[in-house]
Amino acid sequence: MNASETSGLVNFELIHQDARTGARRGRLHTRWGAVETPAFMPVGSAGSVKALGPDDLQKCGAQIILANTYHLMLRPGSGVIRELGGLHRFMGWPGPILTDSGGFQIFSLAAKRTISDDGAQFRSHLDGSLHELTPERAIEIQEELGADIIMALDECAPALSERGQIEAAMGRTSRWLQRCAKAWTRRSSLFGIAQGGPYRDLRKRHIEDVCAIDLPGYALGGFSVGEDAGTMHEGVAYAAPLMPRDKPRYLMGVGTPLDLSICIGAGMDLFDCVLPTRCARNGLLFTSAGRLVIKNAAYAKDERPPDPSCTCDTCQRFSRAYLRHLFVSREILAMRLNTIHNLSFFLGHMANARQAIEKDGYAEFAALCRSTMANDLP
Amino acid sequence: MNASETSGLVNFELIHQDARTGARRGRLHTRWGAVETPAFMPVGSAGSVKALGPDDLQKCGAQIILANTYHLMLRPGSGVIRELGGLHRFMGWPGPILTDSGGFQIFSLAAKRTISDDGAQFRSHLDGSLHELTPERAIEIQEELGADIIMALDECAPALSERGQIEAAMGRTSRWLQRCAKAWTRRSSLFGIAQGGPYRDLRKRHIEDVCAIDLPGYALGGFSVGEDAGTMHEGVAYAAPLMPRDKPRYLMGVGTPLDLSICIGAGMDLFDCVLPTRCARNGLLFTSAGRLVIKNAAYAKDERPPDPSCTCDTCQRFSRAYLRHLFVSREILAMRLNTIHNLSFFLGHMANARQAIEKDGYAEFAALCRSTMANDLP
Repeated sequence: MNASETSGLVNFELIHQDARTGARRGRLHTRWGAVETPAFMPVGSAGSVKALGPDDLQKCGAQIILANTYHLMLRPGSGVIRELGGLHRFMGWPGPILTDSGGFQIFSLAAKRTISDDGAQFRSHLDGSLHELTPERAIEIQEELGADIIMALDECAPALSERGQIEAAMGRTSRWLQRCAKAWTRRSSLFGIAQGGPYRDLRKRHIEDVCAIDLPGYALGGFSVGEDAGTMHEGVAYAAPLMPRDKPRYLMGVGTPLDLSICIGAGMDLFDCVLPTRCARNGLLFTSAGRLVIKNAAYAKDERPPDPSCTCDTCQRFSRAYLRHLFVSREILAMRLNTIHNLSFFLGHMANARQAIEKDGYAEFAALCRSTMANDLP
Repeated sequence: MNASETSGLVNFELIHQDARTGARRGRLHTRWGAVETPAFMPVGSAGSVKALGPDDLQKCGAQIILANTYHLMLRPGSGVIRELGGLHRFMGWPGPILTDSGGFQIFSLAAKRTISDDGAQFRSHLDGSLHELTPERAIEIQEELGADIIMALDECAPALSERGQIEAAMGRTSRWLQRCAKAWTRRSSLFGIAQGGPYRDLRKRHIEDVCAIDLPGYALGGFSVGEDAGTMHEGVAYAAPLMPRDKPRYLMGVGTPLDLSICIGAGMDLFDCVLPTRCARNGLLFTSAGRLVIKNAAYAKDERPPDPSCTCDTCQRFSRAYLRHLFVSREILAMRLNTIHNLSFFLGHMANARQAIEKDGYAEFAALCRSTMANDLP
């Protein structure tokens, strides 16, 4: 048992740095097992990665999942989950969990929000009930959930905000981070979030601000929030090397398989995105030959699996014809089988990236991704 | 390999007859494996037992499943499934399959149907397209699907029909059975269906009519179609012993756990019903302590599994509190976990019945069921 296991804090081991890119091969030690990085975290918003059970997630190769504080604080409530032994036990997930702070959903989902330096007041999108989220409460809720990694409450300005607006959000995020760090009991591992939008000087300044506080890890926020992919890639390529080398670097809300390969090359270690799971439920499958819209009539008699080179449970057992039939018939099983495939594809992509880094071949891997993977979204 | 395996026909082995009731312990040999009877068949209407994969079904203890000709003929079409290697391969189910004839859904689901001695013309409930189902076509479709057991096209009069109406349906069913038997290529095992409603003399006459044709098995239709449970139990108790002893006896569309225990005692071997799967999707769980409406607020912090004495995957891994949370949050996973539990309960109930028969203790088993199981439905 190492120090991180006794303290409850995660501990990042940097195993190998790719010879010619910024890509890093690491291992994040947690109470619930190790996470091989770079790693992609499936999103389990309300305590369930939609359509999958924990058994499916493990078969897909998930090592760590993300849950949303906003959703869980509203229903069933973090106190209920604490009483029931924490989120791992509640949802039957025997691996590490990262929770976001709830801030992002307050900005995107909640009704009638008022934000001040004190915190956010908002009404639930479910029933209109009034809630408050301060930096202190965000930490308390996440500690009640028992997450392994918890995120500081931040303010994320929209991509196309004016520079002044982004600077204001940075300032508030820094003040909130101070309060988060003070409220933090160290039962979970607190990560700080650096903002700054597309402005290099702001990014640099805020990364310095945030990383001045000694925390188990740091994240980049405010990417993939509406800017074009090229701007995001450039921004991450600039920002990642400014982050501490010995701590895990988490890029929030990213992205497509191509985005992932590019941002891994910049030196990021952790990622999350609803893309594989949400697209699966809409019948869009990611494959090694590109994207496949399963409802297309062309697949009505197609005996091939979605991706003949894929080893996931769905591709091993079912044809495009059957998946199309399930999807057009609105069978519940369609959601599970499609999600199993897409998550397996994303997680397999990460495993390939890790292997490429180990062999100092990440540049070639990323180049191959650039030439074979589309980045447009439906 | 025995005779049934070479011919493709199912072969019923009567293993033991309970000493004091009509209950029979049998084994139905099929190309896709043996079915221990009495057996309950989960319903996979459109080529999927709703919310479950074949892996789940096997874990629940399913030995044989039922699929609906009506649904599959409309979408994706029996020709498509034949081209894709048959229904077993299409849906990835490695066990026996029974298909109904499509008749029941034509009467209950289809729009603008016209029935004549020739057959049924109807419009699809999906898109209004015009279809025809004759006895010959019903056999052809089921053979195209590649089912192990196929059902003759029958006319099932509503429970409260006048005697004359039931007699007319019987006559048509008999004429259609002659044509089904003639069209049948013996690639699958054809079962005939005896009607007769609640009238003993009609039941007796029709069972004699239907069983005069040598077929691999026989079914009772026209039960559980609106009559009260007591009437159904009495009717089955009267009819079952009139059926051939050396052939499997299938009671269509039945029933609750109590119905099953009573009708097994009458001497029936095979059953199917949407009850466990449909109730699961509506949040009603069957347990050894009675029925449980999972959305009830009482379960919000209940750490116990749905049924503490159940060994299903759901009860082994999840609490009532989590299942309630998933259900009220409309998470897709709720459907799967609830269905796994209910099917495991039904299939476990059948396994208990089989064990009781083997020990000549079926009377006690049935008495226990009568005293502990409610038969009312929500």
